[in-house]
Amino acid sequence: MNFLDQIDQPALILDEDTARRNIDRMATKALHNRVDFRPHFKTHQSVEIGDWFREKGVDKITVSSVEMAEYFADNGWQDVTIAFSLNVRQSERIRKLAQKIKLQVLVESAEGIRSIASLTDCSPGVWVKIDAGNNRTGLDWQQVDQVKELCNLVKRSPNLHLLGLLTHSGNTYRARTRAEVCSIFRDGIDRLQHLRLAMEDHGLKDILLSVGDTPGCTLCDDWSNVYEVRPGNFVFFDAQQFIAGVCEYQDIAVAVACPVVAKHPLRREVVVYGGAIHLSKDYVEINGQRSYGLVALQDGDRWGAQVPEAIVKGLSQEHGIISLPGSEFERINIGDLLFILPAHSCLTVQVMRNYHTLSGRVISTLNQS
Amino acid sequence: MNFLDQIDQPALILDEDTARRNIDRMATKALHNRVDFRPHFKTHQSVEIGDWFREKGVDKITVSSVEMAEYFADNGWQDVTIAFSLNVRQSERIRKLAQKIKLQVLVESAEGIRSIASLTDCSPGVWVKIDAGNNRTGLDWQQVDQVKELCNLVKRSPNLHLLGLLTHSGNTYRARTRAEVCSIFRDGIDRLQHLRLAMEDHGLKDILLSVGDTPGCTLCDDWSNVYEVRPGNFVFFDAQQFIAGVCEYQDIAVAVACPVVAKHPLRREVVVYGGAIHLSKDYVEINGQRSYGLVALQDGDRWGAQVPEAIVKGLSQEHGIISLPGSEFERINIGDLLFILPAHSCLTVQVMRNYHTLSGRVISTLNQS
Repeated sequence: MNFLDQIDQPALILDEDTARRNIDRMATKALHNRVDFRPHFKTHQSVEIGDWFREKGVDKITVSSVEMAEYFADNGWQDVTIAFSLNVRQSERIRKLAQKIKLQVLVESAEGIRSIASLTDCSPGVWVKIDAGNNRTGLDWQQVDQVKELCNLVKRSPNLHLLGLLTHSGNTYRARTRAEVCSIFRDGIDRLQHLRLAMEDHGLKDILLSVGDTPGCTLCDDWSNVYEVRPGNFVFFDAQQFIAGVCEYQDIAVAVACPVVAKHPLRREVVVYGGAIHLSKDYVEINGQRSYGLVALQDGDRWGAQVPEAIVKGLSQEHGIISLPGSEFERINIGDLLFILPAHSCLTVQVMRNYHTLSGRVISTLNQS
Repeated sequence: MNFLDQIDQPALILDEDTARRNIDRMATKALHNRVDFRPHFKTHQSVEIGDWFREKGVDKITVSSVEMAEYFADNGWQDVTIAFSLNVRQSERIRKLAQKIKLQVLVESAEGIRSIASLTDCSPGVWVKIDAGNNRTGLDWQQVDQVKELCNLVKRSPNLHLLGLLTHSGNTYRARTRAEVCSIFRDGIDRLQHLRLAMEDHGLKDILLSVGDTPGCTLCDDWSNVYEVRPGNFVFFDAQQFIAGVCEYQDIAVAVACPVVAKHPLRREVVVYGGAIHLSKDYVEINGQRSYGLVALQDGDRWGAQVPEAIVKGLSQEHGIISLPGSEFERINIGDLLFILPAHSCLTVQVMRNYHTLSGRVISTLNQS
């Protein structure tokens, strides 16, 4: 009996082979470039999937919250960077973590530095967060004086260990072409490098550079001056990465299996059990239309090829409305499964909370362990 | 000490008094209209909050999934409607539920009816789902013959009990004025009534009508011909309902408390710990700009007035970027809490999984019990 026959409500299906291949490819690329590989675990949030990285030699990771750092520290990870601007309300939890494992944090303000400068019996590593053009967090890369000031503040704190400058060029997610991705990625590195040289002129030596977004790390080959990369999404990829040309369809490792509950022939739409609480509400554009993912039919014991003209046009709390071309519409029956490859896999994992492999094994995450 | 001082990561804050007042108002309105009140519990998803309804005389409820029906049935609710088109893959779980409690389900296809017509030792109530203009699920209200056919199919099934016609006029959520909401709401009822009369002509008697969306039930006073209403969102309301004019700001009963982690004076933006995994990605429009909620500052032991020009302009997995007017920007410090009143409270509850009341009591939900 096919495992998929047992599914009675939306389930996040994980193709383990594809995920392992994605991990292997990025680990190999980092090794080849002689750059430290510190993958971001916020995408999969799972100890078991973490082990697949460990098998490829990974022994240090990035996470996006203190909670996630605690979860992985409790499960054997000894070297963790919390890639989120320091939240002064969590300094006590940070202290406990830093006493237990090798912990690195991000700062972008004097307040942030002061809140950890006084923590006793621990010496966290500190990255200064730089905004290299993404306009989200971090000090603007052109604010050389402020960057220098923060670096010096860290240096003067006896319990802190200054590592260097870190950026996340999340603006590569908005790029349209490979050339544009690589240009943003390279600009980010070059701006950090420019700052590093300025810091050296001020006597701040041994400044390391940490970068890493999935589009840049996947598509770009020039990693010079980089000390470590921290991509995360590449483990599964998703519709956004596929539409942006960052990955191939067959690199996408997750899909939500959704039972078909209704067919509307006049509109050529099917209604599936699978809504915003299963996919999240990120979307892509397909032929100028908003779609909350890519659509595939079942093919034996897994999902099949993309149905190119299918659009996930609406998501309410539990329902998905999928518009289909005539031939596929006819083939689908009430009770069948449709597969939605999520727009943004990180958010889908977060709402679904666990995975089923193609053979039906359940893999838990931080949120359902 | 103020409970809010203890918050170190995003927390969903619930103003119990406001929620209780919202419940009381709708229960009173239903009583006054002599219409059965079967509130939708998909918004709060909590046994404890369910008790607040029970105190107002509510003894029957609506839910949006089999899972939610099981949760409430396990916690003392004996009369539950699953307002989701029957999923044939869950017929066994439906049978078990229907043997335990008074269960009603929705059908919109012969396949759906057949999958429960053969269930032994149970006799679920059945509503035929009608699309009265929302274009999501249900038989089109103009397809009189098909509706009659499904009603007869239910009637002929010895273990099924035909209740009537049910619709969800979710298109009121897209209305811009009170008049438009009431016109959609009333049209929905009138279209069901038209179908009911057609059914009576065919010898199908005692057809009941079930309707209920928060905008319509809140704003419209003509509930004639309605047997029961099933609104849900009104318990908390949210930014969408406020912007649409369905509720006042002070009727909104939930907000996500978010620690401020960075300030960017050049952009007059603050960065909070609070992102898509805490709020979901639904949004409203404020002055033509997309905003993932309304923003308020802390005011003593709760959130204060809306900051009218504040925009939650970006949400990534854990970060929120809030653009603020100059005066508020100056007042806020790193480490303060900002409050985001969610665009869509149902989805925010789903991702946050539990509540903290203003006094710090934790209230759990189905997803974290």
